[in-house]
Amino acid sequence: MKQYIHQDAWNIIEEGFEPHLHKISESIFSIGNGRMGQRACFEEAYSGESLQGSYVAGVYYPDKTRVGWWKNGYPEYFAKVLNAANWIGIHVKINGEVLDLATCKVENFRRVLNMREGYLERSFEATLQHGQRVRIHAQRFCSIVDDEAGAICYRITPLGQAARLEITPYLNGDIRNQDANYDEKFWEPIAHDVQGSEAYITMETRKTAFQVTTGMAYTVLQDGKVLAPQTTTSEATYVAATFQVQAPAGQEIVVYKMAANLSSENHPKDQLMAHCKAVIARVAQKGFDGLKQEQASAWAKKWEENDIIIEGDVSAQQAIRFNIFQLNQTYTGEDARLNIGPKGFTGEKYGGSTYWDTEAYCIPFYLATAAPSVARNLLVYRYRHLQKAIENAAKLGFKDGAALYPMVTMNGEECHNEWEITFEEIHRNGAIAFAIYNYVRYTGDAAYLEEYGLEVLIGIARFWAQRVSWSSDKKQYVMLGVTGPNEYENNVNNNWYTNTMATWCLEYALQSLQTVQKANATRYQELLHATHFKPEETTQWQHVIDNMYYPASKELGIFLQQDGYLDKEQILVKDLPASARPLNQKWSWDRILRSCYIKQADVLQGLYFLEERYDIDTIRRNYDFYEPRTVHESSLSPCVHAIVAAKLGDEQRAYEFYLRTARLDLDDYNNDTEDGLHITSMAGTWMSVVEGFAGMRVRNGQLHFAPFLPAKWKAFAFKIRFRGAILQVHIDQRQVQITNISVRTITVYVHGTALAIAAGTTEGFSQELIKA
Amino acid sequence: MKQYIHQDAWNIIEEGFEPHLHKISESIFSIGNGRMGQRACFEEAYSGESLQGSYVAGVYYPDKTRVGWWKNGYPEYFAKVLNAANWIGIHVKINGEVLDLATCKVENFRRVLNMREGYLERSFEATLQHGQRVRIHAQRFCSIVDDEAGAICYRITPLGQAARLEITPYLNGDIRNQDANYDEKFWEPIAHDVQGSEAYITMETRKTAFQVTTGMAYTVLQDGKVLAPQTTTSEATYVAATFQVQAPAGQEIVVYKMAANLSSENHPKDQLMAHCKAVIARVAQKGFDGLKQEQASAWAKKWEENDIIIEGDVSAQQAIRFNIFQLNQTYTGEDARLNIGPKGFTGEKYGGSTYWDTEAYCIPFYLATAAPSVARNLLVYRYRHLQKAIENAAKLGFKDGAALYPMVTMNGEECHNEWEITFEEIHRNGAIAFAIYNYVRYTGDAAYLEEYGLEVLIGIARFWAQRVSWSSDKKQYVMLGVTGPNEYENNVNNNWYTNTMATWCLEYALQSLQTVQKANATRYQELLHATHFKPEETTQWQHVIDNMYYPASKELGIFLQQDGYLDKEQILVKDLPASARPLNQKWSWDRILRSCYIKQADVLQGLYFLEERYDIDTIRRNYDFYEPRTVHESSLSPCVHAIVAAKLGDEQRAYEFYLRTARLDLDDYNNDTEDGLHITSMAGTWMSVVEGFAGMRVRNGQLHFAPFLPAKWKAFAFKIRFRGAILQVHIDQRQVQITNISVRTITVYVHGTALAIAAGTTEGFSQELIKA
Repeated sequence: MKQYIHQDAWNIIEEGFEPHLHKISESIFSIGNGRMGQRACFEEAYSGESLQGSYVAGVYYPDKTRVGWWKNGYPEYFAKVLNAANWIGIHVKINGEVLDLATCKVENFRRVLNMREGYLERSFEATLQHGQRVRIHAQRFCSIVDDEAGAICYRITPLGQAARLEITPYLNGDIRNQDANYDEKFWEPIAHDVQGSEAYITMETRKTAFQVTTGMAYTVLQDGKVLAPQTTTSEATYVAATFQVQAPAGQEIVVYKMAANLSSENHPKDQLMAHCKAVIARVAQKGFDGLKQEQASAWAKKWEENDIIIEGDVSAQQAIRFNIFQLNQTYTGEDARLNIGPKGFTGEKYGGSTYWDTEAYCIPFYLATAAPSVARNLLVYRYRHLQKAIENAAKLGFKDGAALYPMVTMNGEECHNEWEITFEEIHRNGAIAFAIYNYVRYTGDAAYLEEYGLEVLIGIARFWAQRVSWSSDKKQYVMLGVTGPNEYENNVNNNWYTNTMATWCLEYALQSLQTVQKANATRYQELLHATHFKPEETTQWQHVIDNMYYPASKELGIFLQQDGYLDKEQILVKDLPASARPLNQKWSWDRILRSCYIKQADVLQGLYFLEERYDIDTIRRNYDFYEPRTVHESSLSPCVHAIVAAKLGDEQRAYEFYLRTARLDLDDYNNDTEDGLHITSMAGTWMSVVEGFAGMRVRNGQLHFAPFLPAKWKAFAFKIRFRGAILQVHIDQRQVQITNISVRTITVYVHGTALAIAAGTTEGFSQELIKA
Repeated sequence: MKQYIHQDAWNIIEEGFEPHLHKISESIFSIGNGRMGQRACFEEAYSGESLQGSYVAGVYYPDKTRVGWWKNGYPEYFAKVLNAANWIGIHVKINGEVLDLATCKVENFRRVLNMREGYLERSFEATLQHGQRVRIHAQRFCSIVDDEAGAICYRITPLGQAARLEITPYLNGDIRNQDANYDEKFWEPIAHDVQGSEAYITMETRKTAFQVTTGMAYTVLQDGKVLAPQTTTSEATYVAATFQVQAPAGQEIVVYKMAANLSSENHPKDQLMAHCKAVIARVAQKGFDGLKQEQASAWAKKWEENDIIIEGDVSAQQAIRFNIFQLNQTYTGEDARLNIGPKGFTGEKYGGSTYWDTEAYCIPFYLATAAPSVARNLLVYRYRHLQKAIENAAKLGFKDGAALYPMVTMNGEECHNEWEITFEEIHRNGAIAFAIYNYVRYTGDAAYLEEYGLEVLIGIARFWAQRVSWSSDKKQYVMLGVTGPNEYENNVNNNWYTNTMATWCLEYALQSLQTVQKANATRYQELLHATHFKPEETTQWQHVIDNMYYPASKELGIFLQQDGYLDKEQILVKDLPASARPLNQKWSWDRILRSCYIKQADVLQGLYFLEERYDIDTIRRNYDFYEPRTVHESSLSPCVHAIVAAKLGDEQRAYEFYLRTARLDLDDYNNDTEDGLHITSMAGTWMSVVEGFAGMRVRNGQLHFAPFLPAKWKAFAFKIRFRGAILQVHIDQRQVQITNISVRTITVYVHGTALAIAAGTTEGFSQELIKA
């Protein structure tokens, strides 16, 4: 845990340059726009520890699976997120010496991520080894308006005496991944071009043959005059222009570098270069200031929609905004082919772009803070992969249209290669079905079922109906050999969560069949035909629903995470020596597996998803039993616990769980922020506030709140989109105030009491009422 | 399954050249001497499918473990058996055209592995593309007398007309492994030298820095005269000498190539070259014929000791000799640092050299057919790795001298990298303890316990005592998260075999403590001191012994392979569609895991090891239950079933199981012989005959037999070493005859009847007596 980030409501601020923190900061200060992203590396050369990381959405490399003994059905590859060409680079020499913060004296270093306006700023004064001093001020951003473009303004001022500057804006395609084995490279050069004040390179990925054209337009200004480069370089993987400038002391030399990254996912390969030139021409036309202004307006609009305000706790305020900011940088919802990678564009750890995190943790955030089309696109993403999910299930021996979505994917194919995850962590299918339910429940967009949802639900239901087996011993259906959400168990039998979600999926699929049949008989027939659906399938589904086995302990009044859970040594987490934590760094895998310790909410995840099915005492008994056994070594665990704790009235614990996620990356809680940010768990932080502290739920198409104010806060407020309305919810110690920023009256419930709020008005609900 | 090998009692014979069978034959016709081995590739160039494989004992490469998500405690590497320099190569050009069986017409091709004398022979007539005909006759072997040397005699005779021959004996160090990723190389050149009629190269392995010097001396004879080479080549990884010969039709040109492979495991690196030259000088002095004669005598001696004769079934006769021959080629027992790799020197699949196969399947063979020092060396191998086993256990969180031997190893370190195997297939510890018991039981060498055995037993007992955990639910000790011998289950709870062997180990360790204390109190004290043994440890061991949980079904009267086994769908193997077999090629891993199908004997393995503990009805019930669920997809499964079936009097099934192993490789039963031979399971074939058909057991220091004659056979006979005596056992339909080839009277039991056999005499036991 580190606490070097200065607290500020709208900015992430680092002051003073500490090389050992640089890789962490590179992650934290990352910029992105849903199409591309860039770690907060330096524009100028840096010979210290750094992960120069630039990522382009959808571009990956299929790394060959290599195991001791091959198992049939293994995916051939593990999809690596690829580090792409460096577009931010500006080499600077001062009187012939390379400007490199690892070799010069650095003063007044300040790095700021301006979240309100969406840009990164950095300034410092450096004393080079030969004694020359210089001031640098750099700003850059990835445009969320022109989402293939980035822009940099880099200012150099000699201090004390005149200096000879050599300034080389460049693009470099010769990039390796941090996790490359044997230092192999993943990119091959295709084309390069330097013309006038522009330069381009096109690189192609090995095996996958994605092409990315990176372009730049550079302008160097001295005293308002545009300088011409002395030399240009045009090599297969490197293009550059070098400017020689004699600058008097105090004179600021300004470098503008407009860049663009275009991928063959979005442009025909033979037109990539031409399209890239068009983007460069457009953004060069807008200019750095124009782009930056656009950027600020676009971010203001985003904040207008999804800000959370926390009064009385600047640390919490900064944290929640940071989480929302990074989520918005990762996914915009504009392209249904994209999804939310666990590290977003901030690092290359973990492969693939899509995990069940999206459905379980991110959908609620996008549902409530963005247009319904955004969450819808995330659902359509899975719809588009349905055929691949059916093929994936077929590889594992399932048939007749059963669908198993991949655990990790780039394009619908499974791209993770550990059997206990890939083959057995099948509960992801449940979350994908639940997301459809959640979307329809939240938006009321029942037509989605007709258009896309039901087809997916049928595939998933078929999978579960085939995946269970009949135990002659138990005279019930069982589900053998699974890995539940708690990945600290592998290949267990009858994981309660998985069994529960399986029958829930069957029920929801049956229900949805009826819904669609009633709503649109023609489409219903069409769907039955398209899916070769046979009526007798529903009989089998119902038989499974009626005869499923769910492990439980009558004695303890709890659901059992899986068969045999009570055979484990039941030593609580609080009684573990500190030296054993985190388990995943201290204990070998087998020891973790046979222990009772839970990585992330498992039974509780089910109680959270399906809370309306269970009475409060059942939820409490399970919470009381499992929470003390949970080590929360997944960043996705505390949010569920925060929400359940809040529901149970355990405000203190709810707040503690919130704290564990909110500043996870800012404070480098798990000592791994340097690898990249925990993007998907950031949505969980948002959930902790809105579903936890504010107790927001949708029931029967109506919004409900059951808020409490964390003791340390003066007030908190957030905006919620709900069925065309935008509500501003403000909660302080005295009351809950809800402002209806929309054109129709909306009725919401606070602690069960209906409040009809007319358009443009605010209604209050006294917090006193609850305590009474 | 293929049946192209001609049946012959002493030879493996292939007639006619079928390129699609060549890689299979390369494995089958492999030669080796325990120190090095060579697949039956061609000396001359061959552009068809081939695995040119040459292997040097103890030389490996640590291939980086690469998984999607790293788990703490993973071994850093997977040890690859390394393909080493090609020492057999002789390029032949005929009138300028390369002799290559893939491009010329081949007639009268014949490949013979002469098992009686231990050499490989090949002859053929080739018609080259330009029409020239030529006859080739080649013999080669790895000397079991001079075990760093190999010898080749290669004869070329132009047919029909004179031919210009270009003959180039060479050594080539530029070798890649078949399973290399990204085509990386594992060898770097160190030195090379060509002088007179000798040439040498020294190569070094990457990372592990093993050096191997390969040398050759070549002689080309025309009409009895030694020719001089026209040119020599001396490059970093390639040394060669080229002879130009004008040969009249019918004149045989003879090439002798004496070779040596010396490893830095056996010689100081700076003397490798000098030592290699000395070996070459020595074997060149002996000459090909001298070496071949030595080889024949040495093999005759081996056969004298461990032949099995089967009368009336030449196919079975050939098969059993082939198995014995390959076992002798793989391990000689002369070097306690070596062990028995699963593929021996016949291929590079699987990594590492030592598996539990050695203790469970190979020890009985070497115990009965070789001097006790051979089996003893295999035990001492583990003794020498005890410290590493303690370190290995410590990595997994065990302490105070608990030892967990690796699942796969080259040098005592774990070198396999799948968690379900490495961390969980801990039953190997049981087999290693059982081998000590088995060795002492067979040889009567109780001093072994004092010298080495007890220390290993203490380490293993400590492991089991820590590995169990107390289930408050069951009020018994349980063993969670293991993989049993049946690797078609992973991470199961309470594998009956593992639980049973664990407490057996504790009991045997307690017993051995007492034995040593009584036999040698001083050594006992010394050992207690050396192992920091505390008396209270035995109390804890006894508590585990007394309170262990063993899963069982009272209803079925069987032990349960593991908790929850009866929850599985119980469809018998015979009811599986043929299209599903073999499961490991047709089903995905998760499907196999949740099925009831058993890869290899698991409960039955325990009943085999500890048969004296169980009554015959218990063994029968378990056999009747588990055998129909066993797919025998491990080559190590049928032998145990053959022995148990024989014990139960099921002669028919016993013979069927025997057939499944005996010709496994000769008939390419599993379609994988091309990867190499199943060396360790060959010992199981021997066991099927001696422990199965002949019912050999040691009880209370006495040899027992309970033989039957498989219906297809006229008779079978084998030799057994037992406590200084050599017995020739001959079994036919009428009687069992035992000849005592030793200097003292020995009493053995046949079907429970004692037979005292004086030195040099034969006693018979009428088979009629049994049937009566």
